[in-house]
Amino acid sequence: MNDSPAYRERRAFFDRLLTVYGRKPVLEVLQNPALQCHALHLADSNREQGIVRDIRELAASRGIDVQLHDRQALSRISRNGRQDQGVAIDVLCPAFQQAGDALTDLPADARLLALDGISNPQNLGMIIRSAAAGNIDGILYARRGNAALGPLVIKASAGTLYRAPLLLCEALPETLRQYRDAGVEVCTLAADARESLFEFRPAGRCVYVLGNETDGVSGAVQKTASRGLSIPMRNGVESLNVAVTASLIAYAGQMEI
Amino acid sequence: MNDSPAYRERRAFFDRLLTVYGRKPVLEVLQNPALQCHALHLADSNREQGIVRDIRELAASRGIDVQLHDRQALSRISRNGRQDQGVAIDVLCPAFQQAGDALTDLPADARLLALDGISNPQNLGMIIRSAAAGNIDGILYARRGNAALGPLVIKASAGTLYRAPLLLCEALPETLRQYRDAGVEVCTLAADARESLFEFRPAGRCVYVLGNETDGVSGAVQKTASRGLSIPMRNGVESLNVAVTASLIAYAGQMEI
Repeated sequence: MNDSPAYRERRAFFDRLLTVYGRKPVLEVLQNPALQCHALHLADSNREQGIVRDIRELAASRGIDVQLHDRQALSRISRNGRQDQGVAIDVLCPAFQQAGDALTDLPADARLLALDGISNPQNLGMIIRSAAAGNIDGILYARRGNAALGPLVIKASAGTLYRAPLLLCEALPETLRQYRDAGVEVCTLAADARESLFEFRPAGRCVYVLGNETDGVSGAVQKTASRGLSIPMRNGVESLNVAVTASLIAYAGQMEI
Repeated sequence: MNDSPAYRERRAFFDRLLTVYGRKPVLEVLQNPALQCHALHLADSNREQGIVRDIRELAASRGIDVQLHDRQALSRISRNGRQDQGVAIDVLCPAFQQAGDALTDLPADARLLALDGISNPQNLGMIIRSAAAGNIDGILYARRGNAALGPLVIKASAGTLYRAPLLLCEALPETLRQYRDAGVEVCTLAADARESLFEFRPAGRCVYVLGNETDGVSGAVQKTASRGLSIPMRNGVESLNVAVTASLIAYAGQMEI
């Protein structure tokens, strides 16, 4: 395995690229001067008119590299051939990095989220928006098992996905074991846990795991956790929306004065 | 105006009835033994088979009054002729009441929400779910200007709508003036307000106004408010989802130990 500084720097650059697809989402990216774009990918089957022409002109005016591909190659780039509409763009997300790389730089009081099977794109987008706004230093995200970072997530995140501290990993259980072994406390949110989220004071670095909307935290992830936390609920309410739970975690630290 | 005790009691009973429509939602109501139902309404054009037969049988086994109507009359009952599928049921929601009636019984430290144009049913349902679970004594809701209390709201509320303390009013600005004149402090949530939600300690009864998802708090409602509150946001995030905001309000009081 090549682990030279030059290689690692190059890999870290690619980790920070998010490929956005679909004509309207790509146009919106290009219209946002705050977003730095690496390359625009177009299917060679696109007709040079309407929104595709607008996209090409905007990319040209911003000096963005334009690459033409056949449909199949574009599908591999967008990872969603059915919905990419022949258009994709690589956006630089400065706060994205590999979970393993992030571990060494985490502050001593870091508070993280881990997403263990968030399947609804709207929930995923709302979680990212609240975490970015609140007191969360990183969001552990594996492509496998969670909703993909597509247009619905970007919309529900109100565009905050591009700025969010996403910590990418291959498989969440392994990453959580690695984090735990490095001294990060792993907590799961569970309705039947005795300890309240609002009474818990982390002694150091801490990751809060959010489980699937229906099935909760998976068995493999549960094994890595040393603490369960619940949110007190009145009126016989049995659970909260997972994005609401994420928001309460993100702001729990800020509520104390 | 008839204001006899008997009349008021009868009116309060009808205020507590929520008319649920659509075959699946009505079946789910009947399958839930915790819900008290007043009457089942059926279009006389329904065929006596499948889910409609299940609904009739369940209503009969529970001793619920069944009323047949022509399609037009049923549309008036469901208030949604296009989506009622010829079926509606009146569910008793014990915590619903008229906002004016509720005012006299509010505890001295009551914390309320007011909904000023929540147009997305999913947001409305999530707000209700979080408010019911958290520290909110009532939700001021006018039919006009907000999403209707239909199947999408019930689903997003995870069924908590039936237990939620909904305070019904005709027009929110008038009700807020009435509340303000009775000593309830009216606060709006606004991104540009200087005071933080988490630093504010209500001196007495208090209502937090949530504005429309796009346009925020309306001018007429803004005039009734004496305080603006904001939620601190990092990473350049400009706003939070309105249901997330509601959840942070609902739990802000419980976060302190």
